[in-house]
Amino acid sequence: MTDTPATAAETFPIERLREFSTRVFAACGVPEEDAALAAGVLASADLRGIDTHGVARLPQYHEMFEQGRINPRPNIHAVRESPATATVDGDNGLGLVVGPRANEMAMEKAERVGTGWVAVRNSNHFGAGEYYPLQGLPRGLIVWAMTNSPPQVAPLWGAEKMLGTNPISIAFPGMEEPAVVIDFTTSAIAFGKVEHAARKGATIPAGTAIDRDGRMTTDPREMLDGGALLPLGGDAEHGGHKGYCLAAMVDLLAAALPGANWGPFPPPFPAHLPEPPRSVGLGVGHMFGAFRIDAFADPAEFRRQVDDWVRTMRSTRPAAGTTGPIIPGDPNRRAEETRREHGVPVIRPVVEALERVAAATGVPFR
Amino acid sequence: MTDTPATAAETFPIERLREFSTRVFAACGVPEEDAALAAGVLASADLRGIDTHGVARLPQYHEMFEQGRINPRPNIHAVRESPATATVDGDNGLGLVVGPRANEMAMEKAERVGTGWVAVRNSNHFGAGEYYPLQGLPRGLIVWAMTNSPPQVAPLWGAEKMLGTNPISIAFPGMEEPAVVIDFTTSAIAFGKVEHAARKGATIPAGTAIDRDGRMTTDPREMLDGGALLPLGGDAEHGGHKGYCLAAMVDLLAAALPGANWGPFPPPFPAHLPEPPRSVGLGVGHMFGAFRIDAFADPAEFRRQVDDWVRTMRSTRPAAGTTGPIIPGDPNRRAEETRREHGVPVIRPVVEALERVAAATGVPFR
Repeated sequence: MTDTPATAAETFPIERLREFSTRVFAACGVPEEDAALAAGVLASADLRGIDTHGVARLPQYHEMFEQGRINPRPNIHAVRESPATATVDGDNGLGLVVGPRANEMAMEKAERVGTGWVAVRNSNHFGAGEYYPLQGLPRGLIVWAMTNSPPQVAPLWGAEKMLGTNPISIAFPGMEEPAVVIDFTTSAIAFGKVEHAARKGATIPAGTAIDRDGRMTTDPREMLDGGALLPLGGDAEHGGHKGYCLAAMVDLLAAALPGANWGPFPPPFPAHLPEPPRSVGLGVGHMFGAFRIDAFADPAEFRRQVDDWVRTMRSTRPAAGTTGPIIPGDPNRRAEETRREHGVPVIRPVVEALERVAAATGVPFR
Repeated sequence: MTDTPATAAETFPIERLREFSTRVFAACGVPEEDAALAAGVLASADLRGIDTHGVARLPQYHEMFEQGRINPRPNIHAVRESPATATVDGDNGLGLVVGPRANEMAMEKAERVGTGWVAVRNSNHFGAGEYYPLQGLPRGLIVWAMTNSPPQVAPLWGAEKMLGTNPISIAFPGMEEPAVVIDFTTSAIAFGKVEHAARKGATIPAGTAIDRDGRMTTDPREMLDGGALLPLGGDAEHGGHKGYCLAAMVDLLAAALPGANWGPFPPPFPAHLPEPPRSVGLGVGHMFGAFRIDAFADPAEFRRQVDDWVRTMRSTRPAAGTTGPIIPGDPNRRAEETRREHGVPVIRPVVEALERVAAATGVPFR
């Protein structure tokens, strides 16, 4: 998920970025505790090299608050609940608050009864997916997080955006080896890569996007001009039906089940995206699932197995011209090591956007 | 999943195939009730057009019994259990029996407490994945099934087989519309398609397989000669890391967690595949998860949302040169309609293999 900044960057200590975000959320009317929680989700992404989901998003959240599209003081509450399950209504609160609260419920349920599943409606963008499973690791929990999102992806053989990039995240703790941290969108390519290629006048890989008539294109501008991303796999002969199935699975579980807007209908984020043609539920949806490891296995033995799995995958004979497989989560862990020590590089356009947020809110950025 | 037979086929009523399988399993020492259960799993695949996972597999199961590799009378038992969770040891029984019994446990748990999760070790090939979620539909349950399998897939940047094709299956019931039935392997292409292309002297799509040095190849013989399938997505620029993450997720949840053999170590199926270099657990592993819909939503309202989802996806503007998106499960449902009425076509080589099983077991095939 790491994207090396293409332009000049200024470096900030993570605590500075976290504090700025906390104070901006507070200035938007978010209670202190929630503001700190939300800022922590952004800071986690910044630390771990997911530059698209960290402080760079703060201006978009700020804009959503400015337009009254997010409720700063939501009454987040369960509308159905049992010891192992719940459906939560986020009351149109910040996804960076609704997500962590619902995930906490799922984790507490798992701690009490072995597994906990919490479906969420009436939320919005919940930040980087890996944040949620990372919370489970120190508690001996395997946490699974899914969310739907505004439409960017065409179903196989479709010519328009009907599904979000609908990410899936899950993590498994090792004993001596670092955790396996899985976090991926179910589209063939990230929308950010298409935007990046368009800015640079570059092409995108064949089989990752279509134009407005549903024809494959390598021209990012054709995707942006009424086209769509393809689901993971691309076309039918490369398994595009599987990516479509994955996006559908997330959409039906994380949005249709709790009563959120599914398919092409989630509300826009950022605010300048087009309004959907109709509403079929409340906000966007998430699904959090947690497993207490000792409900299934001896935790120490399982962690040793994860260590063995990690070492086994690393010892795979490398493909010609590569240094061999990495482990899911490696790039983010390395980014975290570097950035804890040396700070977080923030590219110039993001610094400028944050300065505008500082001016608008009166929260000093420097 | 339907594969149109390339060679002449003979047509059999599904009940004839089911009865033959039942009697063959019984002849292998499987108790009556288990034999009928296992034959039902194969018959479901035959009916629904999944020709690779129906009666065509019977000779392989028979061979496994002949070689003493499967326990015909297993003591299938929970080694850990709570109201919503269990880990089950299949005692090296037939996967077609261990799978349905563990899935039944997950469904009963969901009926009692809202969700049920059952991880399984010491099993083997459990048949077509979609069988399991299909069992949940008439009971108002969303069922999720995963299994690992012997290695066929290279992790991204690897040059050898380290992961199974590790399928994921889940289904969502509609009200007036048919259910959305999702069932896919996490490799870029099915191994059967590589074998088929090799027999016909055809090529396979670029980006779906590698040769023994880890280089992309379109020659199916190079994949078969020490190469590997690629994970869904193919190479890094098309999202191959995501398919690797998916295969890893299934492997760690469905195999490492319950104590089955993960990664490259599951025992061979069919029996002629190479023996793994070491054992890290017991047999292959599965994971079954079930949700009672009314734990999360009003069931009638959810079914209406699924209907709306289905109609919305079908109404997607079609890509140029296509008739537009289909719904996951459509091809299998249509196959079932046809085959219930007209019987199941079985290609000549499979008929001959079944005749050999008939001769070996004394169970009449015709």
